[in-house]
Amino acid sequence: MRLSAHMLLVTAAAALLFMPKLSFAAAQAPANSTESQAITSMLNRQADDWNRGDLDAFAKGYRNSPDILFMGPRIRRGYDQMLQGYRTSFPNRQAMGKLTFSNLEVQPLDQRFATVTGRFHLERTAAGGGPASGYFLLVVEKTPAGWKIIRDATTSDPRPAH
Amino acid sequence: MRLSAHMLLVTAAAALLFMPKLSFAAAQAPANSTESQAITSMLNRQADDWNRGDLDAFAKGYRNSPDILFMGPRIRRGYDQMLQGYRTSFPNRQAMGKLTFSNLEVQPLDQRFATVTGRFHLERTAAGGGPASGYFLLVVEKTPAGWKIIRDATTSDPRPAH
Repeated sequence: MRLSAHMLLVTAAAALLFMPKLSFAAAQAPANSTESQAITSMLNRQADDWNRGDLDAFAKGYRNSPDILFMGPRIRRGYDQMLQGYRTSFPNRQAMGKLTFSNLEVQPLDQRFATVTGRFHLERTAAGGGPASGYFLLVVEKTPAGWKIIRDATTSDPRPAH
Repeated sequence: MRLSAHMLLVTAAAALLFMPKLSFAAAQAPANSTESQAITSMLNRQADDWNRGDLDAFAKGYRNSPDILFMGPRIRRGYDQMLQGYRTSFPNRQAMGKLTFSNLEVQPLDQRFATVTGRFHLERTAAGGGPASGYFLLVVEKTPAGWKIIRDATTSDPRPAH
């Protein structure tokens, strides 16, 4: 597995900086407006597209712009690069596995922007790369083509070493 | 060190989901407006406050609201919980170390909101918890009291096991 070299080890020293963020109060109830439902529907449609193996449709959840931004272990930009990256890393259905989103919560900013948090889970065979899960924070924008993701920060759940 | 139990191990399987995000194009030049400068000034002032050991002043970079949201390995909310968490985790100057922000880039959303990405580095003695660094994505809001952070997603750089 080519990507198995990318084992990420985050030390306790680094975790220390985040610790204050681990003692906050429980999340509030999400806004329950028509717009919030439109946003969660867009995300659930992304999961459906992914689980049909349709990466082009999945990618349409993002705004088609060079300015969109992704933060995982690093920061990267751009729609075309995103789509190419997905095609390279998920070349077949086995690698794509089954994606589910849960705990989706929308916080509107104004008429045009909102943030969304949630969890992802990727059910996948060992041959496909094994399961994965984590949290994400998205900024979404209401465009003429509907709500689109313009910023995407995603983390992974900690796991025991193996 | 109480927090040293919080060793976080992120596996290659989890990293796989992020890989598409690792092949994006280089970041574009930041917007260079008066507002962008006001935002980076606010962040640099936070670092100065931190490095004076003044957590109350540092926290003022965040909007004082129960709705502000933080994403590290988990998702948490609220100004008061944030400040209390910082006080618990960084009880003295040795634990606080010296904080620097770099590579700050502002992307305006509209007149009231913007996103900011950058890197943090915490220089710290081994006794204080050792050094740490990573990336962050913030959503900031222009309020009557100036630009304030309302969403904060932070990651840690991968490190070799030890």
